[in-house]
Amino acid sequence: MDPSPGVVNLETMLGRFSEHWKPKRIATVDDFDVKLVKVQGEFTWHAHPDCDEMFLVLDGELTIQLRDRDVFLRRGELFVVPKGVEHCPRAEAEAAVLLLEPAIVVNTGDSPSGFTTEVETLL
Amino acid sequence: MDPSPGVVNLETMLGRFSEHWKPKRIATVDDFDVKLVKVQGEFTWHAHPDCDEMFLVLDGELTIQLRDRDVFLRRGELFVVPKGVEHCPRAEAEAAVLLLEPAIVVNTGDSPSGFTTEVETLL
Repeated sequence: MDPSPGVVNLETMLGRFSEHWKPKRIATVDDFDVKLVKVQGEFTWHAHPDCDEMFLVLDGELTIQLRDRDVFLRRGELFVVPKGVEHCPRAEAEAAVLLLEPAIVVNTGDSPSGFTTEVETLL
Repeated sequence: MDPSPGVVNLETMLGRFSEHWKPKRIATVDDFDVKLVKVQGEFTWHAHPDCDEMFLVLDGELTIQLRDRDVFLRRGELFVVPKGVEHCPRAEAEAAVLLLEPAIVVNTGDSPSGFTTEVETLL
């Protein structure tokens, strides 16, 4: 059965891209974006000075390195990085993550680099 | 292994309550709440005049009745009800849903009733 119009199937969306560290917008809720991202390896240390950021692991395992500890997330687990807190995500094997953050957020926060990217919308 | 401090395991949280139509706050991202709710049967027709509302089905199946059509959601599917749009969720069998909406939202929107409830925080 085809999904109803407007319904977003997470698995279908994850099948639509393969690159790492390039978040894809799948929904907007007021001024917040819901994004999917595939990750592997280590990202870059950064902070979002004005915005919290939620990570929900859909597949695989993700470590969010903070300056004072590592936060380890398995499938079905979420963590909110508070605004202003430096973090650096890392995944040994590929993981799929749902992100929730304000639409204005830049992926590398206060630390632009080769990882900095625009957010593409998956429709 | 115990989860890292601050990590929210969705399955663990769903095991912490059983009542229907009583959303539980599991995380806050800026001024948005992430909530879990178990549902069965039919809710009440209502709208949120100023806020979008996202439904992500974690378990089971959910129908979101709109005035002009039904939106059918399976596990792993999400839908955003735009602000001001009347809707009435319904589930034949019990379903578990992750909700995302501004913290100020009242569950029954513009239509207070016996379903209206405060949001409890699960910690």
